[in-house]
Amino acid sequence: MPVLHDDPATLRQLCRSGAFDQPTAGHAPRRVQANLAIVPRADAFDFLLFCQRNPKACPLVEVLAPGARAPLCAPGADLFTDLPGYRVYRDGHLAEERADVAALWRPDLVAFLIGCSFSFEWALQDADIALRHLEQGRNVAMYRTRLACVPAGRFAGEMVVSMRPIRSRDVATVIDICARFPQAHGTPVHVGNPGALGIADLMQPDYGDAVEIRDDEVPVFWGCGVTAQWVAQRSGIALCITHAPGKMFVTDSKG
Amino acid sequence: MPVLHDDPATLRQLCRSGAFDQPTAGHAPRRVQANLAIVPRADAFDFLLFCQRNPKACPLVEVLAPGARAPLCAPGADLFTDLPGYRVYRDGHLAEERADVAALWRPDLVAFLIGCSFSFEWALQDADIALRHLEQGRNVAMYRTRLACVPAGRFAGEMVVSMRPIRSRDVATVIDICARFPQAHGTPVHVGNPGALGIADLMQPDYGDAVEIRDDEVPVFWGCGVTAQWVAQRSGIALCITHAPGKMFVTDSKG
Repeated sequence: MPVLHDDPATLRQLCRSGAFDQPTAGHAPRRVQANLAIVPRADAFDFLLFCQRNPKACPLVEVLAPGARAPLCAPGADLFTDLPGYRVYRDGHLAEERADVAALWRPDLVAFLIGCSFSFEWALQDADIALRHLEQGRNVAMYRTRLACVPAGRFAGEMVVSMRPIRSRDVATVIDICARFPQAHGTPVHVGNPGALGIADLMQPDYGDAVEIRDDEVPVFWGCGVTAQWVAQRSGIALCITHAPGKMFVTDSKG
Repeated sequence: MPVLHDDPATLRQLCRSGAFDQPTAGHAPRRVQANLAIVPRADAFDFLLFCQRNPKACPLVEVLAPGARAPLCAPGADLFTDLPGYRVYRDGHLAEERADVAALWRPDLVAFLIGCSFSFEWALQDADIALRHLEQGRNVAMYRTRLACVPAGRFAGEMVVSMRPIRSRDVATVIDICARFPQAHGTPVHVGNPGALGIADLMQPDYGDAVEIRDDEVPVFWGCGVTAQWVAQRSGIALCITHAPGKMFVTDSKG
């Protein structure tokens, strides 16, 4: 088991120096973790509108002014260096993965921080709800669904969801707890019945790692910030910079 | 007491034909009512950002695409004709009040629907919480405060709040109920102590009508969508079209 970093500023500093390049789940418990999406100003209104229209998938934690790189939710941070890893999409194609994107900064780039379900996992664990992917040291399982998002300008596409197996007797408690975290996707979008979402095989996620589902459990599905990456990629915009999967921006915010 | 219209589509049709030009409080109970602000596309990103950064004052119900006038939350409606009254601001000054703004439509105009506290008043009344302004047939009292909003681009200014006198024993119940309506400003921003908000005299509201506060009551303050009008006016943008005070857009949405 790796060292878990409690202090978000320390973790961000380790990212900046290149000393930390791992997924952030489990680190800095009780702090809001966020998906990153950076798009040119020319596409920013439509992208902001997309997020506003699809709050279960893309709850906005913070949107920065064009050219700004220091968010209010993490004093001293730099969004272009303080994540464990980045992806760069050009014209809708993954062009490269990078440890930082400082060299790509431009005054017209607008950074979006979008909520992440990692932010409520500590509260579930506090209530003795076991989370399989954390127990097994895996990334959470994510799937593209047939749920259409509400489009905005050139941004359109299906909702991506994360899935956690939950004991049937715990489902109501889980929903009750998650309702307190609307910026971290809030309540689930779907309980049980993966086929209705267009998911043919839970053992073959589109992103992340598959986990076992036991006899006394049901699969529970939450909106996922990867939706934003997916629609940005699908739109074919000239440039979109995101975090690498599971390697979130860790804020100081307690939500 | 005037006739109260239950059906939102009927009420909108009466607005469109010119047969209804009154404030909408108390009409169409359980339906979301919304503030309207229409700004040019060139200012829309900053304005959307302002709303996103100030959700207690400017919770977004819906943002339409440039040029669109039919919102999803009210099928068949036209935002340029279906309100009881409009205001037109040019270069930061109130230029005119109009019964409709169809003649001002342009393909680059972006319409914002911002939540209104009228949307939770029915739930308070259901819980036997008396609301003085409704009892007395007045507009709710609104004040500009010294609370600074988080600025966005050229949009900046103080939060405007609405005030309702609430019995001390009911304050907790009121907060509990309002928490269910985040799109209608949600929980209060301030309870008691108007001086701390910079309000010298509750009997002299900046907008709406003063109401009596009794010995067993405290003044309770909510974020108010008039904040959006105030910062749009203050910014001096070339054009901003809004609803006239108290004359909201009535949606079909049950929130």
